[in-house]
Amino acid sequence: MHYLDNAATTRVADEVAAVAAEVMQTHFANPSALYAPGARAEAVIRAARTAVADSMGVRPGEVIFTASGTEADNIAIQGALRARSAWAEQIVVTGFEHPAVQNTVSAMEREGWRVTVVRPDAAGHVSLAKMVQAVGSKTALVACMHVNNEVGTLQDVAWLAREVKRKNSRTAVHVDGVQAWGKVPMKLSATQIDSYAVSGHKIHALKGVGALYLRRGFHTMPLLYGGLQEAGMRPGTENTPYIAALGKAVELMQKNRAARGHIKQLSDQLWQGLGELEGVVRNSPPDALPDVANFSLPGIRSETMLHFLEQREVYVSSGSACARGAASHTLQAMGLPASRVDSAIRVSFSAENTAEDVRALLEGLRQGLETLARARR
Amino acid sequence: MHYLDNAATTRVADEVAAVAAEVMQTHFANPSALYAPGARAEAVIRAARTAVADSMGVRPGEVIFTASGTEADNIAIQGALRARSAWAEQIVVTGFEHPAVQNTVSAMEREGWRVTVVRPDAAGHVSLAKMVQAVGSKTALVACMHVNNEVGTLQDVAWLAREVKRKNSRTAVHVDGVQAWGKVPMKLSATQIDSYAVSGHKIHALKGVGALYLRRGFHTMPLLYGGLQEAGMRPGTENTPYIAALGKAVELMQKNRAARGHIKQLSDQLWQGLGELEGVVRNSPPDALPDVANFSLPGIRSETMLHFLEQREVYVSSGSACARGAASHTLQAMGLPASRVDSAIRVSFSAENTAEDVRALLEGLRQGLETLARARR
Repeated sequence: MHYLDNAATTRVADEVAAVAAEVMQTHFANPSALYAPGARAEAVIRAARTAVADSMGVRPGEVIFTASGTEADNIAIQGALRARSAWAEQIVVTGFEHPAVQNTVSAMEREGWRVTVVRPDAAGHVSLAKMVQAVGSKTALVACMHVNNEVGTLQDVAWLAREVKRKNSRTAVHVDGVQAWGKVPMKLSATQIDSYAVSGHKIHALKGVGALYLRRGFHTMPLLYGGLQEAGMRPGTENTPYIAALGKAVELMQKNRAARGHIKQLSDQLWQGLGELEGVVRNSPPDALPDVANFSLPGIRSETMLHFLEQREVYVSSGSACARGAASHTLQAMGLPASRVDSAIRVSFSAENTAEDVRALLEGLRQGLETLARARR
Repeated sequence: MHYLDNAATTRVADEVAAVAAEVMQTHFANPSALYAPGARAEAVIRAARTAVADSMGVRPGEVIFTASGTEADNIAIQGALRARSAWAEQIVVTGFEHPAVQNTVSAMEREGWRVTVVRPDAAGHVSLAKMVQAVGSKTALVACMHVNNEVGTLQDVAWLAREVKRKNSRTAVHVDGVQAWGKVPMKLSATQIDSYAVSGHKIHALKGVGALYLRRGFHTMPLLYGGLQEAGMRPGTENTPYIAALGKAVELMQKNRAARGHIKQLSDQLWQGLGELEGVVRNSPPDALPDVANFSLPGIRSETMLHFLEQREVYVSSGSACARGAASHTLQAMGLPASRVDSAIRVSFSAENTAEDVRALLEGLRQGLETLARARR
């Protein structure tokens, strides 16, 4: 199996699964219970919180656990807006956010917020200066993803936060960091970013756990109400096994110093191989992160190639998994023609991938281009 | 270990943990992915959805998975209110809801909703007639828990829903069924209840998964925005392992036909033993479910007895785990004097408990009453 869809989700690392399985049985007590087994479960959560906080360069008390990146984005955005509804009326957002941000902002627009969208250019870059320009005295929130999930481009969110705050210190700056976590070194405490969302299942942890950085002193409100868990910002009995497993995944991620170089090699191998195939158009710009490679095969629909590759146990995607085969939101926002949008392929690596995976993909693409192009004639 | 705090959380059943551990590794693909491994993960979720729906007597399409009972309550309540904000202004709720309902309603009150609270009587029963009486043309929502988590009393929520709808067909009826699921037979499709929240970790499944019944055609709105998962009502990549494990827990729950009789025996054994101890005051009425037994030992603080019992590896609680040792919300609402509230002990059974657990508890209480009462002299 050649699994090359790591931006959709990653394989759960064996050690991570082992931690989850063990904690399920040994630490089943309610972490809020007053007796020792409850306190031990709470200690497991505390250790994971410290690991996650360290990976972002923040304090443990600034991290809450959620059930997903989507929930983290929603808490950050909806909370920041409700806390600013008395004086603010505007949201500034990029045009290529993940649906967790994009659709939340759209829902807020239906509730009456004014939304300014700054679209990416054809290379997948957003003008952060334009975003700053759009900020005024009534701007509640600026939201910008750190690494785009479809083309892999990186935004300088630290610069953005600084400039936004210079124009309006009360404007909240939220960053969806789901695709950046573990790929881009970060020390959020050295920035003026207010909130930062990450997800476990993109770093070989589990689907069903995420985390949200909320800068100390950041003015916000919870989305869910209930018990006192997570400092009241995210009630509900804690998912001790997944939180512990997330801590383990972070530890593995930080230990694996060779990962970045390895993924760069795979990326170079892929782009070189793609350059030798006819009819490949590059969508990810050269300065995108090596983890994501987006390209089009004009004339062959994404789904057709995807299923051709699947028969060879090569798994890639046509865009964001969350869009379920709908035309790529990011590529459309980049203004690419339909012929490129409808034939786009996204390859995304993890440190577990090998040169053999890339060879299998390239060979599959080569045969696919031949077979499928012939079929059309 | 004598674990008698099953209303706080239950031990994860071995077979349930095994399913979660296996699915973590075999079905890691994103259920929204277009290739076969994604479709297989989706099929696992579909099977679990059918099992959960069957257990409630509803259609699979009427069940969405959440990360907790708390989240299910919040989606139901906040969604129903936002969908009715154009014409409605009032909420009717009992005075002894779980914090997931109580604090959500309080937050909505701060946002401008008018809240009518119907308090329980000293025996832990709520007058449903009074709740119906409070419903008017501007009532958006009536919320009533099915089984109270602290004293075990059962409310006739089917009757309540019918009578509420008779007065105002547009009023939403939400039921927190977290403590009732698996204990009270239910066929929700035969009632006029609109939404019903349950949680995995009270039925030997995992913390971090819950479910919400939303009657087909029920007018509501989502709380989170993002991908298309769960029919758009609860976006975020699905937690396949926990959802599959929840399906297994439901299957085990329904197979265990002896459970109800067994728990009744344990309850009888406990109350008989308590009757032989001096200074025990009963808080759970005789018609409460046998799963929960609440009583007070006036003169001995709950925490003191709880820690005395803990030294003997007998684990009980002083009230709701979610309140973390704060004075019992339910007993206060019942109007009990502080001497009883501050000395309350909640024992809660699961089918895994044994007569030996009850004997250990009774012996611990007997010695505790002797030792701690002597200490006070």
